[in-house]
Amino acid sequence: MKRRPGTLYGIGVGPGEPEWLTLQGHRLIRSAPVLAYPVNARGESVALRIVKPWIPSADQEHIGMFFPMTRNPDERDRYREEAVLRLLPLLEQGKDVAFITEGDPLFYSTFGHIQKGIRRFNPHIPVEAVPGVSSVHGTAARLTLPLAEGKQRLAVIPATEEWERMEQILLTHDTVIVLKVARLLDGMINLLTRLDLAADACVVSHVSAPGEKIHRDVTSLKGMALPYFSLMIVKKREKEGESPWLNPLSGASSI
Amino acid sequence: MKRRPGTLYGIGVGPGEPEWLTLQGHRLIRSAPVLAYPVNARGESVALRIVKPWIPSADQEHIGMFFPMTRNPDERDRYREEAVLRLLPLLEQGKDVAFITEGDPLFYSTFGHIQKGIRRFNPHIPVEAVPGVSSVHGTAARLTLPLAEGKQRLAVIPATEEWERMEQILLTHDTVIVLKVARLLDGMINLLTRLDLAADACVVSHVSAPGEKIHRDVTSLKGMALPYFSLMIVKKREKEGESPWLNPLSGASSI
Repeated sequence: MKRRPGTLYGIGVGPGEPEWLTLQGHRLIRSAPVLAYPVNARGESVALRIVKPWIPSADQEHIGMFFPMTRNPDERDRYREEAVLRLLPLLEQGKDVAFITEGDPLFYSTFGHIQKGIRRFNPHIPVEAVPGVSSVHGTAARLTLPLAEGKQRLAVIPATEEWERMEQILLTHDTVIVLKVARLLDGMINLLTRLDLAADACVVSHVSAPGEKIHRDVTSLKGMALPYFSLMIVKKREKEGESPWLNPLSGASSI
Repeated sequence: MKRRPGTLYGIGVGPGEPEWLTLQGHRLIRSAPVLAYPVNARGESVALRIVKPWIPSADQEHIGMFFPMTRNPDERDRYREEAVLRLLPLLEQGKDVAFITEGDPLFYSTFGHIQKGIRRFNPHIPVEAVPGVSSVHGTAARLTLPLAEGKQRLAVIPATEEWERMEQILLTHDTVIVLKVARLLDGMINLLTRLDLAADACVVSHVSAPGEKIHRDVTSLKGMALPYFSLMIVKKREKEGESPWLNPLSGASSI
């Protein structure tokens, strides 16, 4: 008798707030016999910390997987393949695997690579994705800032040093999100100042997670070392003099 | 004694699947004394239908509000103000209002205007947003299609007839989402064909909702009338000949 394989679920757990998990993610995390999650070099997992309030106390196999942030594609692929080969036998034994990722599983996430790998080794394993709140939507919620309305255009780009293209994107969209902005912060501040957009920008680190910081005066950040999970939102004023920021949070997290 | 005002919660309920509601949205929808939602001209509410499994059977005031899709800004503003003036006294009486919207409350949503109105009339009323799964993330999940990875750039634009700008955006981003594409479908198909991108496009209507349709052969849609809630994803091939679609769904919803 052939055993039915388990399903690989890619579950987005949001950027930090445990209550931003979906009901479907909650149900699957509680019921899956295997919970897999990314860990950093010290073995810590942001995704696991987020869902901690929801994981079952009963037996559940936990698998932490390390994906190094490296520019060496061979090393990167080796770790991804190792993760795939660790999950594959469990799935083939018929166990469902809940693979949790920060944010959304299909938005700058390792899950995209893991599912490709699983399908390559065994195309009969069902793969499903459960959407999550990405840092983009999470930041908009924390700021109660409309990302886009009506005919407005939104761009989401990782921070790269293609400054001409970055300028073009800033000029042709109403809202621009720059992900992982820390490394290029000074260059971004210079570019925004030149385009008269510095007052329309806001930098948020660790949105909705412990250590959240909201920086509204981006020019004051020059030379500062921000956390890796920092993003910039540039939301252009609709009218001269009107601030795009509706809800200037004044709490402890805002500096 | 001064009464504490209630909080206006803008709650995203996702594009259709009731389980894609967040735990926070679920909790607030169940506990709020007032549930407000948009209705169409026939009095029906997509948002209410999505959360139907979760609404409490006990007393809860339900308020359907009509926001006509009109290009007349005066008429549009009149309906928005009417909605604000209907919610304001309830909030001032100290009642929390759960205002539910399809998708995410800060992503092409009426909630952006409602919160602006409430703040204008009474800046002391607390406003909070609970993020939701937008149709963009919902579609990626249904297709198990990575929206963006690594250094890829994503653009989200409503369908407008600025064809030159549309072409420029298609050329400078790796993934482009065109919202409410139905009205401009034929023009989009022509543009994609000219740019050799038609095979990289997919149109999805009513994602995760009753009547969901996934159209992978977009050129076959020419001349067709699609529902208003239809979006197009253009995901460029990374390598020549490699399809961006990992998981060609073959179920009943795919045609």
